[in-house]
Amino acid sequence: MVVVMSPDATDEDVAHVVARVEGVGGEAFVSKGVVRTIIGLVGDIDSFHHLNLRTLRGVADVHRISDPYKLVSRQHHADRSTVWVGREGRQVPIGPDSFTFLAGPCAVETAEQTLESAQMAKSAGATILRGGAYKPRTSPYAFQGLGVPGLEILAGVGEATGLPVVTEVVDARDVPVVAEYADMLQIGTRNMANFGLLQAAGDAGKPVLLKRGMTATIEEWLMAAEYIAQRGNLDVVLCERGIRTFEPSTRNTLDISAVPVVQATSHLPVIVDPSHASGRKDLVVPLSRAAIAVGADGVIVDVHPDPETALCDGPQALLGSELRELAQAVRRLPPIVGRVDAGSLVRTV
Amino acid sequence: MVVVMSPDATDEDVAHVVARVEGVGGEAFVSKGVVRTIIGLVGDIDSFHHLNLRTLRGVADVHRISDPYKLVSRQHHADRSTVWVGREGRQVPIGPDSFTFLAGPCAVETAEQTLESAQMAKSAGATILRGGAYKPRTSPYAFQGLGVPGLEILAGVGEATGLPVVTEVVDARDVPVVAEYADMLQIGTRNMANFGLLQAAGDAGKPVLLKRGMTATIEEWLMAAEYIAQRGNLDVVLCERGIRTFEPSTRNTLDISAVPVVQATSHLPVIVDPSHASGRKDLVVPLSRAAIAVGADGVIVDVHPDPETALCDGPQALLGSELRELAQAVRRLPPIVGRVDAGSLVRTV
Amino acid sequence: MVVVMSPDATDEDVAHVVARVEGVGGEAFVSKGVVRTIIGLVGDIDSFHHLNLRTLRGVADVHRISDPYKLVSRQHHADRSTVWVGREGRQVPIGPDSFTFLAGPCAVETAEQTLESAQMAKSAGATILRGGAYKPRTSPYAFQGLGVPGLEILAGVGEATGLPVVTEVVDARDVPVVAEYADMLQIGTRNMANFGLLQAAGDAGKPVLLKRGMTATIEEWLMAAEYIAQRGNLDVVLCERGIRTFEPSTRNTLDISAVPVVQATSHLPVIVDPSHASGRKDLVVPLSRAAIAVGADGVIVDVHPDPETALCDGPQALLGSELRELAQAVRRLPPIVGRVDAGSLVRTV
Amino acid sequence: MVVVMSPDATDEDVAHVVARVEGVGGEAFVSKGVVRTIIGLVGDIDSFHHLNLRTLRGVADVHRISDPYKLVSRQHHADRSTVWVGREGRQVPIGPDSFTFLAGPCAVETAEQTLESAQMAKSAGATILRGGAYKPRTSPYAFQGLGVPGLEILAGVGEATGLPVVTEVVDARDVPVVAEYADMLQIGTRNMANFGLLQAAGDAGKPVLLKRGMTATIEEWLMAAEYIAQRGNLDVVLCERGIRTFEPSTRNTLDISAVPVVQATSHLPVIVDPSHASGRKDLVVPLSRAAIAVGADGVIVDVHPDPETALCDGPQALLGSELRELAQAVRRLPPIVGRVDAGSLVRTV
Repeated sequence: MVVVMSPDATDEDVAHVVARVEGVGGEAFVSKGVVRTIIGLVGDIDSFHHLNLRTLRGVADVHRISDPYKLVSRQHHADRSTVWVGREGRQVPIGPDSFTFLAGPCAVETAEQTLESAQMAKSAGATILRGGAYKPRTSPYAFQGLGVPGLEILAGVGEATGLPVVTEVVDARDVPVVAEYADMLQIGTRNMANFGLLQAAGDAGKPVLLKRGMTATIEEWLMAAEYIAQRGNLDVVLCERGIRTFEPSTRNTLDISAVPVVQATSHLPVIVDPSHASGRKDLVVPLSRAAIAVGADGVIVDVHPDPETALCDGPQALLGSELRELAQAVRRLPPIVGRVDAGSLVRTV
Repeated sequence: MVVVMSPDATDEDVAHVVARVEGVGGEAFVSKGVVRTIIGLVGDIDSFHHLNLRTLRGVADVHRISDPYKLVSRQHHADRSTVWVGREGRQVPIGPDSFTFLAGPCAVETAEQTLESAQMAKSAGATILRGGAYKPRTSPYAFQGLGVPGLEILAGVGEATGLPVVTEVVDARDVPVVAEYADMLQIGTRNMANFGLLQAAGDAGKPVLLKRGMTATIEEWLMAAEYIAQRGNLDVVLCERGIRTFEPSTRNTLDISAVPVVQATSHLPVIVDPSHASGRKDLVVPLSRAAIAVGADGVIVDVHPDPETALCDGPQALLGSELRELAQAVRRLPPIVGRVDAGSLVRTV
Repeated sequence: MVVVMSPDATDEDVAHVVARVEGVGGEAFVSKGVVRTIIGLVGDIDSFHHLNLRTLRGVADVHRISDPYKLVSRQHHADRSTVWVGREGRQVPIGPDSFTFLAGPCAVETAEQTLESAQMAKSAGATILRGGAYKPRTSPYAFQGLGVPGLEILAGVGEATGLPVVTEVVDARDVPVVAEYADMLQIGTRNMANFGLLQAAGDAGKPVLLKRGMTATIEEWLMAAEYIAQRGNLDVVLCERGIRTFEPSTRNTLDISAVPVVQATSHLPVIVDPSHASGRKDLVVPLSRAAIAVGADGVIVDVHPDPETALCDGPQALLGSELRELAQAVRRLPPIVGRVDAGSLVRTV
Repeated sequence: MVVVMSPDATDEDVAHVVARVEGVGGEAFVSKGVVRTIIGLVGDIDSFHHLNLRTLRGVADVHRISDPYKLVSRQHHADRSTVWVGREGRQVPIGPDSFTFLAGPCAVETAEQTLESAQMAKSAGATILRGGAYKPRTSPYAFQGLGVPGLEILAGVGEATGLPVVTEVVDARDVPVVAEYADMLQIGTRNMANFGLLQAAGDAGKPVLLKRGMTATIEEWLMAAEYIAQRGNLDVVLCERGIRTFEPSTRNTLDISAVPVVQATSHLPVIVDPSHASGRKDLVVPLSRAAIAVGADGVIVDVHPDPETALCDGPQALLGSELRELAQAVRRLPPIVGRVDAGSLVRTV
């Protein structure tokens, strides 16, 4: 930490800061400039937070130097992690050596629609099935998901197709039941800072797919992952899904740079959701290609056998020729960037 | 709703849209332009949503015309509402005729600190006490609040000072206990889109203070209020607390225009939180003055007897001369904009 | 400046930074932490910029500590400045003791419309006339202003009504002719970073009204003012006019906090433009009240005798009852915040 | 255009709108809903703009339906365009069939540094040389470029290496001299809305590289291109270079989706600048790969033989192993997305 004194700070002001820092066992290095004095703090950063240094007389600013997250940082865990998703006997990796394709319907509507979507996904090369039984919707008047019956459908379709299943949980009270049916819990963008939910997911004993809050910085996103990790669960996969900006032509702006930025600071795998980022079917294929090329550990997309009747996000669901085009990209591009298909690495022990 | 066809849409494409709309009992008015055709839809807007019109061939865009919220809209409820906060025998109004000043510590730390803060608040003219027992923190390593013991302290101090109490609830599972101790439930900025929590708060039988999500549009904020209202609770007070922008000199950017914008479209009261918006003590007084002048129904600010030792947001807490300056503004400005002090309207029946 | 080394930086890396700093005559204070080393730099900050410290091996980050602007800073110029606008014999102040009301049509269309607008403005209490002869328009097909004939009209109306005139200049080549006709040059939001124009305006010998870029930070805005000041012209008035955010209900988001933030760091006067910030007539009066209450040194608004036929920004122009309401606010609110009407301070020497 | 009436609009209000529209030769189709009436306008959209429909009584909102740009739109120009850069005898294409790699130093500092940078660029596969002789800098105290001597160096190095040259022009007054030395004029992000400069560039008879304003919507960017096109110059190449968002870990946020969005609506080529978007050397290679994969027509990057001494943007300049990695990506990825190296298509007639 660095404390920047204001130009009119007195020697007493500086001494007071030093005394407070030393009072909690820290060291304070004072650099007196012509205009300002700056004080470098060395020691336990958590103890410095409680000092409220910004409130002290003569203090102009306080700069944090270190990253605030620990368990998800690469600092003490240099190798990037692989998260395995699935039941014993069949686990699919998401990590630095492979490329994982996740697909499925935005919402589980019926057993037929879910099965058909899963078969489309699988034929296109997907190795993990996505689908929503609980939908967080901006409007209380919109379809909110089937709930437990939806989970049952999803689990059945997962078993029938041999695909592990990831599904969203929106309320801490639902975590146990969702964890019973699903192979991976998804925390959605609107709940990234729902700390009770993060902790419940951390306790559930299943891998977690943590979407970035549409208005969260990368640091806040990693802090949310830290909440899960702190409960002893390091099987967290991050998912970039677009951030809110002033540009109206896409629903959100896919922050493609977030992938290498996260990989430089955290050991957790990171995938990309081009469907929700753009909200436009015609952008899903080019953005998926960009995600693979930038080095993402996977992509997750919406598919639906009949987007016209979909109960949720129909305009972004792929089918037909676009899905074939995506399947081709998923086959051809990962080897160019040094990755193998996750399907070839499935762990069957 | 208006459906905009793309320039290359065929007559069949137009006919298909019309048929779908009529299929759910709506009327479709077709306007054929030189370049494009537009179709105006009349009828039940909710039924149109299920049509996924954007996925139909030849459709370029779909514009929503009406507001998506109903219960909180002024359309069928032209008079602006007053929400009464407090137990029987002593209720303080927040509404269009009065100006209400809410103040207290960011977090409840001890009984002494809470009482002292409450007395500071009351002397400065506050008629409702704020204070947090559950704190949603970005870091799992930061102080998370005292929980139930904090609620007990708060209720006791409220009784001792005669001030109704508002406090935040961050988890749907905590709503019953918070509603037992508090006179008003606060939903914080990070939970504005936590729909399970909104519904639980709507069921709790107490007024709700709904902060704007720091990255929510005004429409999304009103939709969050609609979630509460839909549970039969129309005692919702909105609170503008700054939005996330690119400007780094304040923690968030206070969207002062949100006050008249909300008042034009919703009948709910709306107040302003300059402390959390700016994160800077030196801006709280000028921003409070701006809030009163723009026509807010109240302001809510942080006060603390010793910001240097505060466990939460010390740098923005007022005391001493700044608090006196604020007290003066709260006395002198509301009459200029046609409002009386809420304290003079307390309902004692 | 503070240089933060990465955790794996070597002693040689640190020594290299120190050597580079000392090579340009600076001093480097090294604070070795458990995880990282930080180096505080003392000396001439401009010389440090040329060192490209961020490119050196082992350097993780470089924090600037001081403000990058000098001439417009309060650091060596603690008293806030007053800028006088007008010809000899009649100059209107904009500064800390007064409140100045500027009004007029968005664009000069005809002599009649300009005169009528000026009379409306004057009756409402305005002491400076605004009006555009050169309009920067997003579309090349929109009305671009009358040019020199517009300047002539404006100067004539200014003389007829006794109001000094401020008008926008959009091209460095036009600065001399605009400076000939106008009492104050306006640099618009789209040209805030047009450095050649800023320098030309700085050379013109007239006060400058510098609007904030709609996507500029406050620091960048002050750096733009520094460009003008560096040419020897310190008669710069800043104008907050809204920033671009994700909120769609107003054209831009008025950053009301910018007023006290600027006043804390710069000695230049700062006014507010609620018309262009909101783009909505119904918000101009409440936002003007907020601007006065927050402590702005003035407001500038659009008025037009017939908004329905205005060639530019008709929907935000005031007339009739709204203008009377604004006139009342302009009379009653400034004294509450300790300011007198600029009209009473006119310098006639 | 669609006019949305407010719920309380009267029949007279509707009739007035219809009369105004018909008065300028348009047709108005009225759709009366239960709550609101909407009016679809058909005819010459430019004439409707002058009606100021938003100011009419009873009008709640006006939605534009068509794109405001014409010459740069794909609507009447379905095939995507190729722009040829260079002197007679050697012209390099930027367009839909090829992939063009542009590289060079951020600023021209000396003849040696420029030549060395150009040789690095060429060895890595670049076919067009970039380099700045005029630098728009946020600070008046930063290096502003060499001016005409810089142009001379650049032209000489271009000739020596056989690479066409693109360089920025920041002032309309400099357009003639820059056009004399350079093969392509660059309009930078800060000048995207400098309409006088756009028009001067449109008149200069050379291709223009138009960077996106860091806070411009895609529509505004295309309107800026329309300004150039309207002067008879359709040789415009668009360049996405990052937009301003709340995310601090990169200088700007590369809006990778802008590439396919632009390609869907405009026939102009579009390239990507990952160096300025991210400001981080370590992100240039992955972002370049993403740009190629998403379908960009080219990338433009900063290279410098000695970033430590660079006078501008050293921290983002590539050299050594990173440049070799980029060279490899530029060779291997374009064929996967169906493009050939622009160098193989050089026009020598």
